[in-house]
Amino acid sequence: MPLIRFGVSIDKILLSKFDRFIKDKKYTNRSEAFRDLIRHELIQQQWKGCQEIAGAITLIYNHHKRELVNKLMDIQHDFGSNIISAQHIHLDHDNCLEIIAVKGNPKQAQLLADSLKSVKGVKHGTLSMSTTGRGII
Amino acid sequence: MPLIRFGVSIDKILLSKFDRFIKDKKYTNRSEAFRDLIRHELIQQQWKGCQEIAGAITLIYNHHKRELVNKLMDIQHDFGSNIISAQHIHLDHDNCLEIIAVKGNPKQAQLLADSLKSVKGVKHGTLSMSTTGRGII
Amino acid sequence: MPLIRFGVSIDKILLSKFDRFIKDKKYTNRSEAFRDLIRHELIQQQWKGCQEIAGAITLIYNHHKRELVNKLMDIQHDFGSNIISAQHIHLDHDNCLEIIAVKGNPKQAQLLADSLKSVKGVKHGTLSMSTTGRGII
Amino acid sequence: MPLIRFGVSIDKILLSKFDRFIKDKKYTNRSEAFRDLIRHELIQQQWKGCQEIAGAITLIYNHHKRELVNKLMDIQHDFGSNIISAQHIHLDHDNCLEIIAVKGNPKQAQLLADSLKSVKGVKHGTLSMSTTGRGII
Repeated sequence: MPLIRFGVSIDKILLSKFDRFIKDKKYTNRSEAFRDLIRHELIQQQWKGCQEIAGAITLIYNHHKRELVNKLMDIQHDFGSNIISAQHIHLDHDNCLEIIAVKGNPKQAQLLADSLKSVKGVKHGTLSMSTTGRGII
Repeated sequence: MPLIRFGVSIDKILLSKFDRFIKDKKYTNRSEAFRDLIRHELIQQQWKGCQEIAGAITLIYNHHKRELVNKLMDIQHDFGSNIISAQHIHLDHDNCLEIIAVKGNPKQAQLLADSLKSVKGVKHGTLSMSTTGRGII
Repeated sequence: MPLIRFGVSIDKILLSKFDRFIKDKKYTNRSEAFRDLIRHELIQQQWKGCQEIAGAITLIYNHHKRELVNKLMDIQHDFGSNIISAQHIHLDHDNCLEIIAVKGNPKQAQLLADSLKSVKGVKHGTLSMSTTGRGII
Repeated sequence: MPLIRFGVSIDKILLSKFDRFIKDKKYTNRSEAFRDLIRHELIQQQWKGCQEIAGAITLIYNHHKRELVNKLMDIQHDFGSNIISAQHIHLDHDNCLEIIAVKGNPKQAQLLADSLKSVKGVKHGTLSMSTTGRGII
């Protein structure tokens, strides 16, 4: 892929903050950091549109709450076409970490995440909005 | 667990925005939404401190870039004690989605995520900061 | 599902061996053990035919062998339609356990397993022949 | 690793069957196939002894059977120290494929597999006996 080089003007204070961010985040140079910001923005756009996306939902819950476990399983089967697979980790005798790999329509994926996170008894839930990688260099 | 009920004063406009958010996110009532906000804040604190955390890192990359694949594998083995397991999904002939379940010290987990995301050729990376569930009701 | 009850005649010595097996394997009674034997036979038939199957491939290898890692990844992408997802575990600084969830045509799944297991440097590989559950009570 | 070469005498008919097996299994030569047979035998020995092992349990079940789902989850938490993580796949609206990565004492791992497989309602279960890779070249 040919690289194009161009100049960017940034306020001194803002740039020093950005350089600090680059250092903290282990980027090797500013260009790599900029490329990441652009990609991140493109992926946000994909999630607002109708393109196919990919992502991950994390859930933390106590598996001793029977009704909760069954409800989470039912919701996942209702959204079967949006789920690739789930990784289940028994953190301790009570707590489970479930990481669900999702794909497909962004609105459906968001609805699935919201439905799971709002089940009574789920301690914490997150949705990582990522991409299928297509159209992202 | 005994529930304690108390009053909250909120500006009318802010409350209507919050109610819209509650509806969008499928919460059944305001209390459940508030409990989630409090838990979310507690988890943010855990990630700033030294308590054990749990979470997930997502990565999107093209597996044809050999050097990239090997570098990601090396970094993961260097942080072996922070990784529970990884879920690998072959999205298409080129693109991979890798979801890494992490645990342990929050600073180490953050450093692992930053190290993986900054490898040249990774198209997108996210870190979901979650919790071991201990101390979170 | 209505249960049908019928008699079975078995040689005394064989039956005592079978009862020992039932006890070892934690079955609660002979009928449950027999049902499992019948299901197992049906699944073997599915793998010899053309019905859709499901299963798991396990691989143990040293990730420091670069060529090996890349070859395993290439083969998996070539058989993309037969792979649901893979679970990757960093057992120690050298050794990886990879568990690949497979589905589809049994001959393709067997060919995928054989192709992965025969890659030079793979220390051990297994194929668990299971079922999609359809048609199995 | 230095390779040692030695002769092996095998009955003609047996050898032709073995060569057919080698071809079917995609081995590139007899030595590689022999190495695999030796490794396989060593791993069987590990499972009969007290060395640490690794492996995978597969389960097929209908998630609509509530009692079953809860029982499988309870057993897994009871054997928490033997389980690394589990991969859960929603095969269709009814059937689930669960693949549990196990490690530790072989007797415990076998007991865990037997306990899960014998739960009433599990349609099929397998145990892949593998290795941590340590001591296996």
